[in-house]
Amino acid sequence: MRDVTTLREAVYSLLETYGRLLDDDKLEDWVELFVEKSRYEIISREKREQGLPLSLMLCDSKDMLHDRIMSLREANIYNLHRDCHVIGLFRVDSEDGITVSAPYSLFQSTLEGDSRLFSIGRYHLKLVEMDGKLLIERQTVVVDTAAIPTLLATPI
Amino acid sequence: MRDVTTLREAVYSLLETYGRLLDDDKLEDWVELFVEKSRYEIISREKREQGLPLSLMLCDSKDMLHDRIMSLREANIYNLHRDCHVIGLFRVDSEDGITVSAPYSLFQSTLEGDSRLFSIGRYHLKLVEMDGKLLIERQTVVVDTAAIPTLLATPI
Amino acid sequence: MRDVTTLREAVYSLLETYGRLLDDDKLEDWVELFVEKSRYEIISREKREQGLPLSLMLCDSKDMLHDRIMSLREANIYNLHRDCHVIGLFRVDSEDGITVSAPYSLFQSTLEGDSRLFSIGRYHLKLVEMDGKLLIERQTVVVDTAAIPTLLATPI
Repeated sequence: MRDVTTLREAVYSLLETYGRLLDDDKLEDWVELFVEKSRYEIISREKREQGLPLSLMLCDSKDMLHDRIMSLREANIYNLHRDCHVIGLFRVDSEDGITVSAPYSLFQSTLEGDSRLFSIGRYHLKLVEMDGKLLIERQTVVVDTAAIPTLLATPI
Repeated sequence: MRDVTTLREAVYSLLETYGRLLDDDKLEDWVELFVEKSRYEIISREKREQGLPLSLMLCDSKDMLHDRIMSLREANIYNLHRDCHVIGLFRVDSEDGITVSAPYSLFQSTLEGDSRLFSIGRYHLKLVEMDGKLLIERQTVVVDTAAIPTLLATPI
Repeated sequence: MRDVTTLREAVYSLLETYGRLLDDDKLEDWVELFVEKSRYEIISREKREQGLPLSLMLCDSKDMLHDRIMSLREANIYNLHRDCHVIGLFRVDSEDGITVSAPYSLFQSTLEGDSRLFSIGRYHLKLVEMDGKLLIERQTVVVDTAAIPTLLATPI
């Protein structure tokens, strides 16, 4: 379908878009990176290693993800912040479908300009190609940083 | 002129050099990444979104950038620190000139070795090709982190 | 031997693997990224610039690195943490052997999920190709962040 270099460039582009849309608060556009029957989950590294099925956030369809974003838009008045995603080196495996793994660092700033490390961890993605474009079928965000209430404010 | 992959590699190389020269305190060499008629500006995300023309730093020629560096060399005795730039995934658009956007995280360490997150935000660059080499014609650094006095110590 | 793009992809893959194995606590696998006669050193930026030969960690063979990992496995009961490496843009020079330089940010999280910036600095690598695979012959980690006792807990 694609050669390795082209696939890597397409994955790079997807991850770049992923981070930029979140940083620009374009959450509705960010949802469009997912296919209809998709699954987005945030889970702590500890829970995952223990095999516990407790998610910090779980949307098992694009519709559910969209509803979530709408709720955020309505509710998220008192917790305004800005994201900055710095995504690290990624790995692509295309032997059995396209899977991607990448560490991320997510910084947040208040509107007053106080910045802090908000979350670190690793993305695990399963991608599919539709109409020549890569989309997310499944994403698990494994966070090293413990869940705090505001963690649920926006996707990671 | 260049194919997409070659252009991406040239942009990668420019951004890598950009961060490394600043981290190595080679500010004079860093200035050479800009063309003569260039513009370098640091602005807060908040001010930018409000359309306010208040810059944290503004040099609208390479000469002015050079003067700035010379001033830093003379004045910057009491504020010694080391930079470490970790630049994230970038986007290149070559439809109307070459524009690049990339998130960055900038850490600083004192000479005693205390490290901290200093600034996060996003670079917006307009590049030109001269003698087969990419140079910066215009750069806007949009910072998420509020301006603090030492912000102006060195370029970001 | 390799063209520039292929070499860059191989270096990318090595650095990605390097960070991931450490983050996944696969230290024994990480050691396998080094050749037998290798040298791994961690040194502070300050000491390096002063030309002082004081290392924070020095292993001058793969065997020694392996012993070190074994000691960590036995001793490291009370200092459990998780690493997250976000490695920045790297530079490859292949004129006189293959040398690589890359800034890194290393975050650590406790088992309770408190994350913090642990160390920033720059990797300097000398690589060799063996059986079509890149391996590390020499690595110097120049850290901007001062040595703290736990610095020696695991490799950076």
